[in-house]
Amino acid sequence: MKLSIAVLAGDGIGPEVIEQAIKVSDAVAKKFNHELTWNPALTGAAAIDAVGEPYPDTTHDICVAADAVLFGAIGHPKYDNDPLAKVRPEQGLLQMRKKLGLFANVRPTFTFPSLLDKSPLKRERIEGTDLVFLRELTGGIYFGEKGRRDGGETAFDNCVYTRAEVQRLAVKGFELAMTRSKKLCCVDKANVLETSRLWRETVQAMEKDYPEVTVSYEFVDAVAMRLVQWPNSYDVLITENLFGDILTDEASVISGSMGLMPSASVGTENALFEPIHGSYPQATDLDIANPMATVLSAAMMFEYFGLKEEGQAIRDVVNSALDTGMVTEDLADGGKAYGTIEVGDWLAKNV
Amino acid sequence: MKLSIAVLAGDGIGPEVIEQAIKVSDAVAKKFNHELTWNPALTGAAAIDAVGEPYPDTTHDICVAADAVLFGAIGHPKYDNDPLAKVRPEQGLLQMRKKLGLFANVRPTFTFPSLLDKSPLKRERIEGTDLVFLRELTGGIYFGEKGRRDGGETAFDNCVYTRAEVQRLAVKGFELAMTRSKKLCCVDKANVLETSRLWRETVQAMEKDYPEVTVSYEFVDAVAMRLVQWPNSYDVLITENLFGDILTDEASVISGSMGLMPSASVGTENALFEPIHGSYPQATDLDIANPMATVLSAAMMFEYFGLKEEGQAIRDVVNSALDTGMVTEDLADGGKAYGTIEVGDWLAKNV
Ligand SMILES: CC(C)[C@H](C(=O)O)[C@@H](O)C(=O)O
Ligand SMILES: CC(C)[C@H](C(=O)O)[C@@H](O)C(=O)O
Repeated sequence: MKLSIAVLAGDGIGPEVIEQAIKVSDAVAKKFNHELTWNPALTGAAAIDAVGEPYPDTTHDICVAADAVLFGAIGHPKYDNDPLAKVRPEQGLLQMRKKLGLFANVRPTFTFPSLLDKSPLKRERIEGTDLVFLRELTGGIYFGEKGRRDGGETAFDNCVYTRAEVQRLAVKGFELAMTRSKKLCCVDKANVLETSRLWRETVQAMEKDYPEVTVSYEFVDAVAMRLVQWPNSYDVLITENLFGDILTDEASVISGSMGLMPSASVGTENALFEPIHGSYPQATDLDIANPMATVLSAAMMFEYFGLKEEGQAIRDVVNSALDTGMVTEDLADGGKAYGTIEVGDWLAKNV
Repeated sequence: MKLSIAVLAGDGIGPEVIEQAIKVSDAVAKKFNHELTWNPALTGAAAIDAVGEPYPDTTHDICVAADAVLFGAIGHPKYDNDPLAKVRPEQGLLQMRKKLGLFANVRPTFTFPSLLDKSPLKRERIEGTDLVFLRELTGGIYFGEKGRRDGGETAFDNCVYTRAEVQRLAVKGFELAMTRSKKLCCVDKANVLETSRLWRETVQAMEKDYPEVTVSYEFVDAVAMRLVQWPNSYDVLITENLFGDILTDEASVISGSMGLMPSASVGTENALFEPIHGSYPQATDLDIANPMATVLSAAMMFEYFGLKEEGQAIRDVVNSALDTGMVTEDLADGGKAYGTIEVGDWLAKNV
């Protein structure tokens, strides 16, 4: 296969971890006879610094032309903690999601046996956890009308969903559930919100098209609890944008392997793959960042192209690295810690 | 002191746990020479069954006339899991909060040394946790305009906040922080929401009035993570209605003592005290429900009246009961389990 991939390395440790993912992807491509082209483009604080906006049109054009986007991380202290600033990296992120039509954010949370003890949860609570959130990513209160009234004294954010938006996300949920344990949980707040009642009603009406899937409906506050109590009781969860933001982050820490968690954001035309961790500006250029989440995001990218074996090859080599202790300091646990580049090299060599 | 208290026992185990709280409160009142009058009123499914609505006017009048409200729990299977139904117990709850002006929900999360092992979190993560959420309870997306357009195909919920609403909640937060470790965390999503930017802006402007309080600003998704990772790093947290709903429930399970967690909802004129647990219909009338959360809610009620010693007396007797194993089956851990009434009697006798 010939694949062209847009590379949005972003800020902080973004460029370093992306470099390793490219290295490993190239090694896999070589092994399986694919041809990858990498097209770098600016985003985040790096883009604001260079051209004054976080998601420039040139970057968008490169993403649209590519078969997929590999994304690092964005955010830099000089733009952080000032949500009142005019131009912020986050705005670029939201524009990008919207303009690329990336309506489904896919966030798996799973455990690595060798890392179970890193979890803040007790072993028996976390063992066997393997769940996937599908978070709606281009609608809801993130993109509804927002503003001020009464000379700035009143603020509002409108949350809006259409049935079609719910359906296209739910279809992905049902389909994913069919490839797994056929359990789907619809997370909403239908006892309070009209948008949630639309979600529930829409998903209920789709149940008949997937008779094998068992669907449960749970309120977002109950899920926030059960995720900590029995994360391994979940399989596929679908939810709207804001609930997904909160719950996927909550879920990301329970496994104790946050530095290893990949994600995908997909639409009809485009797809983007990125580690769930942030840009960790303090770690920039120290050669200590863990590249594995980005490498596993590249695995999801291969799988998205239908290249299952290639994806599995990456997952396998990451597992070997964990088993043999070829890890960065966040996972070294008193043992020897390797550099970002060393780990990347090892993965590329052994894949 | 002469105090008149409205009693809204509600559904499921509500009446049983309320009965014990009344018993213990009466014992405390006797000891400290107060005169308590209890005025029962209907709410929840019980009220729907009796008069067709979950928060009847007669109930409201009784609450308004009282010095405080003691609330059990509401919710019954026959009205549950059907958020599309016309009349639901939850609606009564929301009406009650709004009509009584209970704008601040106070939700402490703390640990009991003897119960640390019940937490899903590892001991070292949870030890020393003692935090309080102040959740805004009468505004935001819960009470904004909501509805359908396009023949039902589009749903919307509007989230609205005024500066005055933020201020009155934040004042309570700053004041509470002053009585504790002087740390306040404002939880918002100011990188996305205009209402959150109003929250942040308003709280920032109030900092100068409380120079001793150190204020931090954190995004809701980050708090959802840190609550699981290091709950003991928080002290007082203030937040809007929906974020508070999710985060207080998440926080309630980390201590492992959910059956013991009290809460208060206060306004300018009225105040209500209730356990955070639900109505557990399956446990109704089995004499197995843990009454301690309701008893501790009564302690918060005494403290609200300025009766600190009385509140402390209740807290002390609950601690003794835990220490001596005078507990219901949820806490018995293989040891002897006592009935709801036995535990209530013991607390009343030993207070
Ligand atoms: C940075 C922020 C706008 C973003 C979001 O809320 O979607 C982030 O938290 C995420 O989850 O990707
Ligand atoms: C029952 C529901 C309407 C309510 C809420 O969302 O406020 C409950 O979850 C709570 O937290 O008291």
